[in-house]
Amino acid sequence: MKTRAGNYFEDFRLGQKIAHATPRTLTVGDAALYTALYGSRFALQSSDTFAQFVGLPRSPLDDLLVFHTVFGKTVPDISLNAVANLGYAEGRFLKLVHPGETLTAHSEIIGLKENSNKQTGVVYVRTHGMNEKDEQIVSYVRWVMVRKRDASAPVAEAHVPALADCVAVADLHVAAHMNFDTLFDPVLSGSAHLWGDYRVGEKIDHGDGVTVEEAEHMMATRLFQNTARVHFNQFAEGQGRFGRRLIYGGHVISLARAISFNGLANAFTLAAINGGRHVNPLFAGDTVFAWSQVLDKQPLSHRKDAGALRLRLVATKNLPCTGFPDKDDKGAYPENVLLDFDYWAILPRA
Amino acid sequence: MKTRAGNYFEDFRLGQKIAHATPRTLTVGDAALYTALYGSRFALQSSDTFAQFVGLPRSPLDDLLVFHTVFGKTVPDISLNAVANLGYAEGRFLKLVHPGETLTAHSEIIGLKENSNKQTGVVYVRTHGMNEKDEQIVSYVRWVMVRKRDASAPVAEAHVPALADCVAVADLHVAAHMNFDTLFDPVLSGSAHLWGDYRVGEKIDHGDGVTVEEAEHMMATRLFQNTARVHFNQFAEGQGRFGRRLIYGGHVISLARAISFNGLANAFTLAAINGGRHVNPLFAGDTVFAWSQVLDKQPLSHRKDAGALRLRLVATKNLPCTGFPDKDDKGAYPENVLLDFDYWAILPRA
Amino acid sequence: MKTRAGNYFEDFRLGQKIAHATPRTLTVGDAALYTALYGSRFALQSSDTFAQFVGLPRSPLDDLLVFHTVFGKTVPDISLNAVANLGYAEGRFLKLVHPGETLTAHSEIIGLKENSNKQTGVVYVRTHGMNEKDEQIVSYVRWVMVRKRDASAPVAEAHVPALADCVAVADLHVAAHMNFDTLFDPVLSGSAHLWGDYRVGEKIDHGDGVTVEEAEHMMATRLFQNTARVHFNQFAEGQGRFGRRLIYGGHVISLARAISFNGLANAFTLAAINGGRHVNPLFAGDTVFAWSQVLDKQPLSHRKDAGALRLRLVATKNLPCTGFPDKDDKGAYPENVLLDFDYWAILPRA
Repeated sequence: MKTRAGNYFEDFRLGQKIAHATPRTLTVGDAALYTALYGSRFALQSSDTFAQFVGLPRSPLDDLLVFHTVFGKTVPDISLNAVANLGYAEGRFLKLVHPGETLTAHSEIIGLKENSNKQTGVVYVRTHGMNEKDEQIVSYVRWVMVRKRDASAPVAEAHVPALADCVAVADLHVAAHMNFDTLFDPVLSGSAHLWGDYRVGEKIDHGDGVTVEEAEHMMATRLFQNTARVHFNQFAEGQGRFGRRLIYGGHVISLARAISFNGLANAFTLAAINGGRHVNPLFAGDTVFAWSQVLDKQPLSHRKDAGALRLRLVATKNLPCTGFPDKDDKGAYPENVLLDFDYWAILPRA
Repeated sequence: MKTRAGNYFEDFRLGQKIAHATPRTLTVGDAALYTALYGSRFALQSSDTFAQFVGLPRSPLDDLLVFHTVFGKTVPDISLNAVANLGYAEGRFLKLVHPGETLTAHSEIIGLKENSNKQTGVVYVRTHGMNEKDEQIVSYVRWVMVRKRDASAPVAEAHVPALADCVAVADLHVAAHMNFDTLFDPVLSGSAHLWGDYRVGEKIDHGDGVTVEEAEHMMATRLFQNTARVHFNQFAEGQGRFGRRLIYGGHVISLARAISFNGLANAFTLAAINGGRHVNPLFAGDTVFAWSQVLDKQPLSHRKDAGALRLRLVATKNLPCTGFPDKDDKGAYPENVLLDFDYWAILPRA
Repeated sequence: MKTRAGNYFEDFRLGQKIAHATPRTLTVGDAALYTALYGSRFALQSSDTFAQFVGLPRSPLDDLLVFHTVFGKTVPDISLNAVANLGYAEGRFLKLVHPGETLTAHSEIIGLKENSNKQTGVVYVRTHGMNEKDEQIVSYVRWVMVRKRDASAPVAEAHVPALADCVAVADLHVAAHMNFDTLFDPVLSGSAHLWGDYRVGEKIDHGDGVTVEEAEHMMATRLFQNTARVHFNQFAEGQGRFGRRLIYGGHVISLARAISFNGLANAFTLAAINGGRHVNPLFAGDTVFAWSQVLDKQPLSHRKDAGALRLRLVATKNLPCTGFPDKDDKGAYPENVLLDFDYWAILPRA
């Protein structure tokens, strides 16, 4: 059988290591498409001269473009038969990626737990993205509900890994040669609000709403070489649980991150993903809004020019965020909330 | 308040200078997207070798890609609360832009006039686009109707600037090192019709019609980092005056310019925008057609290899241009006319 | 008349040579768009490092991007007034193309045959694509049904060229400096199945289905600067034979080729197009599936590291390919079959 049908839950083993196919050289072409698909305006990723002002050789690629590309490589091995991508943790961005670099990915299965219905199970996987020098550029854990091929197939003993609630500040990476002391320009960046201007607990409604089209999310998901079937095949999905193509969760993260520019224009790089959940599905025709909350605020021990904000990014559909729509006291989300994403961003400290 | 809500009419002052955020390095990725979005076929911008035949180091970026990028930078400061973009004048393209160059923009408020309903006012703004060497690459005036935050807010005395009907021929820029004397090839360019072959008054029906999709105009407008809300948010616009997302007027200009290749294949560069009006809105699903009229024809005093044509480019929706649909004697446009755009183009003189 | 209306059947002469307009420099921007539009995952075209492992300076552009670009150049001269593109033969890919190279195209009319209704005729044309060094990179024959301007116009005597059923193995090109002996990595390529693992007659269902949107096929067709009107103008096509925009046949070939990755991941380059027919039209909203059959399997006389597979690629719409939908005994295709494409691919021999 030359066509690969992807792994089912019973195919995974705890400790299994998987090298993923299809190395990918990212270029300025990918950066332009990322701009066209999300409208991101962070000055560091938009302008070579701005990047050079703060010590970089040129604009790095958007951290989420890197993340989605690495994620995409894992799909044929990990989640081709997934029901849902459930969560992220322990994500770290370890090195900026510039156009011309080639990404590969490998993963380790760190947890497995069959669901009680025996139709599905949860796979916990830690993935590492590498550049062509074999330097680690990103690392993260995700867990995903995967179908069983055969409900009666025996499975390994359940193991749920212990995962950190939050990446430690000491583990946050900031490019050593990036320095905000000197030529950082708050006019060009679009905001004078630096790290010191944010307070813990502060909520920010980012205002804008963006309607999503089928052609856009499919082009994005293909750009990331993510082959998950639910995003592309209306013939099959029309007969499925939603009757629609389901939009890749990472598309929501990138849309919300781009919308968050208005209020967080100086949150230039993602240093870590502490956690993230896709709590409701997004479909074409829906309009995405976003709000943020400052969860924590920490200086960086090794440098004075930048600080870290722990941010919660919440995305909604068809619901403006003036009222900061949120989960209730029992942790249940309203149906208009799409995403609850917890990350560390690096801002100039000033 | 960290989220910027944009300026309202009463926030502007005559003579106010504004440096706009988000410098943008344009690349071959942006050029490829411009081709995919508009289908432009002008040989100078399509082929490095063709550009080298006429003395350039490589293909320049399309003048309108440069224009839209600079325009996009002004939106968060000038027109986030705009009702309509009313017109352009005194546009000059001063230097070709090549992939790898970084654009910034700054503007001056040169006129302000409240409307009699006191709900809105017209803002006249002159914008300058610069490259990373701080050379001016484009300059233009536009006027735009902007909402007042508060109808009762006091406003400055009305001032409407005097604007030239037409950019003077002596002010038209042609790249000094671009020379059509030698290796210009009319087979490769797609037309043997040079500057001398056009006559004043001549009308050209460009023939082709192109239907516009939501995904296309949103990707284009995001590529230009233009954040005007009416283009993206169906949730809000569905409740608005049109019930639809309104398409960025610049999208119409670029579509019409690409369509005009068939009849004006040697009109390689735009030297000036004399004027332009978006006379009716365009929506997804509409089909755009275009025709041109030669308004004037002038040699260039400093060179014999090229000449300038003053052209009027009229775009329609859902109406082929065999009959050259136009305004009536009172200057009123039929509802199928979208755009009336007056520009100087540079053609080989032969 | 400055607007070109394209040639009609009676305008062509046997032996006529046509140099086509609009040279085109392909870049990494075009490569990124190709990925976003088709989701291709062949490692050789996706990764500079993978390409370097097998001896190339960097990733070549997808052979079909090159083919479509050359094809697009011919449309304004050959098929602007076409009813249908009928077939391909004697296609050869003679040289890999890398980002930065500039393509031009020229053609010769090698056959003409009026249809009995005198409304249309079939034009046979051999087209050559060249790079900026004037090296031939691709060559193919296509035949296309073209309208007559005037049914009563006299036409040349019918001449139907003799065309090979299949490109001879001895004529297949493989880049001399590409070598699979050494560092070829089947994990990175996505499959351990090499040339020796395929058997003649074998059928492969590629599994995946991809739904097509109007914005996607129009962006693709514009990227190729293909101006055929039926793809873009809903205003006209809404009144036409299908009531819909017809999707460029090459879009189907590229979608099917990308889908065929799953089962043919090591079929890195196309060496020849033996034949191809678009047997039914594709419209937006349809979902494309594909299956392949191994028609022949030949070693290459001059090298041991690679071999040639002759493959038949069949694409369907709204019909999964588990049952290998095919023409019947009389050669008639079911209405769900879109494409029957016969090509030689080069695979590592191992």
